Amino acid sequence: MPSPSAADPEPLPPAPPPSLPAAARLAVVGATGAVGAELIACLERRNFPLAGLRLFASPRSAGKRLMVRGTSLPVEALAPGCFDGTDIALFSAGSETSRIYALQAVAEGAMVVDNSAAFRMDPSVPLIIPEVNARALWRHRGIIANPNCAAIIAITPLWPMHRRNRLCRLILSTYQAASGAGAAAMEELREATRANLDGQDYPPRVLAHPYAFNLFSHDTAIDLATGYNGEETKVMQETRKIFDDPDIAIGVTCIRVPVLRAHAVAITATFEDAVTPEDMRAELAATPGIRIVDDAARNYFPMPRDASGQDDILVGRIRQDLSDPSGRSLALFVVGDQLLKGAALNAVQIAELLLTRLREVRA
Amino acid sequence: MPSPSAADPEPLPPAPPPSLPAAARLAVVGATGAVGAELIACLERRNFPLAGLRLFASPRSAGKRLMVRGTSLPVEALAPGCFDGTDIALFSAGSETSRIYALQAVAEGAMVVDNSAAFRMDPSVPLIIPEVNARALWRHRGIIANPNCAAIIAITPLWPMHRRNRLCRLILSTYQAASGAGAAAMEELREATRANLDGQDYPPRVLAHPYAFNLFSHDTAIDLATGYNGEETKVMQETRKIFDDPDIAIGVTCIRVPVLRAHAVAITATFEDAVTPEDMRAELAATPGIRIVDDAARNYFPMPRDASGQDDILVGRIRQDLSDPSGRSLALFVVGDQLLKGAALNAVQIAELLLTRLREVRA
Repeated sequence: MPSPSAADPEPLPPAPPPSLPAAARLAVVGATGAVGAELIACLERRNFPLAGLRLFASPRSAGKRLMVRGTSLPVEALAPGCFDGTDIALFSAGSETSRIYALQAVAEGAMVVDNSAAFRMDPSVPLIIPEVNARALWRHRGIIANPNCAAIIAITPLWPMHRRNRLCRLILSTYQAASGAGAAAMEELREATRANLDGQDYPPRVLAHPYAFNLFSHDTAIDLATGYNGEETKVMQETRKIFDDPDIAIGVTCIRVPVLRAHAVAITATFEDAVTPEDMRAELAATPGIRIVDDAARNYFPMPRDASGQDDILVGRIRQDLSDPSGRSLALFVVGDQLLKGAALNAVQIAELLLTRLREVRA
Repeated sequence: MPSPSAADPEPLPPAPPPSLPAAARLAVVGATGAVGAELIACLERRNFPLAGLRLFASPRSAGKRLMVRGTSLPVEALAPGCFDGTDIALFSAGSETSRIYALQAVAEGAMVVDNSAAFRMDPSVPLIIPEVNARALWRHRGIIANPNCAAIIAITPLWPMHRRNRLCRLILSTYQAASGAGAAAMEELREATRANLDGQDYPPRVLAHPYAFNLFSHDTAIDLATGYNGEETKVMQETRKIFDDPDIAIGVTCIRVPVLRAHAVAITATFEDAVTPEDMRAELAATPGIRIVDDAARNYFPMPRDASGQDDILVGRIRQDLSDPSGRSLALFVVGDQLLKGAALNAVQIAELLLTRLREVRA
């Protein structure tokens, strides 16, 4: 296959200047969830040019109101025709909701950015990290998928090097936060921990295992043919699709740790040719969306506490992998906000790319 | 080099029958620490044949009393002559104390089992995991070193396979508990977490970084030549010494997670010849000190909550490593109690082996 650097142009700029007149009518599906709240916050914070915004959630939440840019908006239930007049619908309400309503949204004229796993591996659906494969976005037929959060955080920092020196083998161990399982899991972590500190029992409700001061293998089902769980399988499959390279050999271990909202990943990456930590630092220093936090003298490296609420993926512990004497492997440790770059921010960045195109079409 | 299986006899049985008459006069140095408390508990629980027990700690703790087998024993300060009449001294009071007082203990006639890093890489000091290299114990000149806790937990389950099919490459990502930094770090995790839940600030005192719902790279100093921290370097060097194989290529990432007392490790292990998960399970099923916890149907795997307070190392997620198409690599996830098999239990097992020899010498 051709080297990716030969084929890929530079990605499109992620955010259009907000002063341009074109604006889109948006819908957020799953507006009351953990990612939904961050979707709305990202739209506000990035001055996304809105010509309208509708908020949808489950019938249980319908009737609530949320403040957006100083205006109180109603939360509505999904219904036939609810996407009429919507340009872009951001879905983050789980795979089942996406499977049913994303197609309805497309039929009603909207483009869908879907944060669920429902369509990610569909060959007709682009799976997009704007810093990596913005170019693939334009093949969409109405639905664009937002990748798995752990995949986004782990592989975005590997892309610049992969363009110069092909990534051959990837070994990932994740340290995943509660937020990946939603707002209720974050609350369960807090409540279970408080109960533990008070010497009280707390039977798990949202997650499969006790969470206070504990960690456990990601509780998606194990594929008995491979021994890998659903989360690990997503990371492996999605990485190959996003990098458009079916030959990258990948092994992943996904672990849920008692952290609230930023995922960490220990990475061992083997490249086709020899590579040094300095090569990687030089690539990353010039990469938008990445911040190098790698202060060996102060022993200061990426931490969930620092990544939480931040758009950038923090990258550190960049070093030669001593388990590969060929000098072709690096080890690094990355942390990114699961709700932002792992979910809402990436989806809004995709919407910004779509808006640019909408603007071009209407011009 | 010869295959390890050709050279190594079976390890000696770990615990002597308690009914035998020979008994040893023991000392515990660091008796008031987290490991010290577990050393005393292990001696009690395993019916270690004691002909005497003296407890030592820092001058600050001297004068306290601890209950051992229903008897209140004084905690003493270390002083010249304090090891006179001691057969075996178990040290767990940090490298500095070991460097000064272990040699004194040997000069005063005791054998030392040292839980610190002070002597581990000294070529004249055996570094022992009883299930792995009990045979190397008898080369000691008074001091026997207890390995790094993360190393013990990660590599004990790999030894049986390594004896049949040489381990060539090892990639480890650790999830290390507070207890590895002592009782004060465990207390800091509890207090920092409670403060966080109460919306209060908690400046770190014992550890280098905020610990509540956070994780961070192990806070031992980074070797600027390699980029690896002290803990990682220990795991790499000690693994090669314990397995008596200088050629195993090892890469390690050591991360401190907000868990109280059991270390977890995600392992990717490459062997000389092809290997299957079934091969590994068959080896481990027959290995003392190991419990396989690998229930894919129930999604039940090793967790710190289950390993805490347990002697066994829990091993699960045993699967083919999909990043190695040659079929020579396995992935697994292991969890062990850092204070028990990672420290106190392993030290008491070594003392039990020494007692067996004492008994033989006196017979």
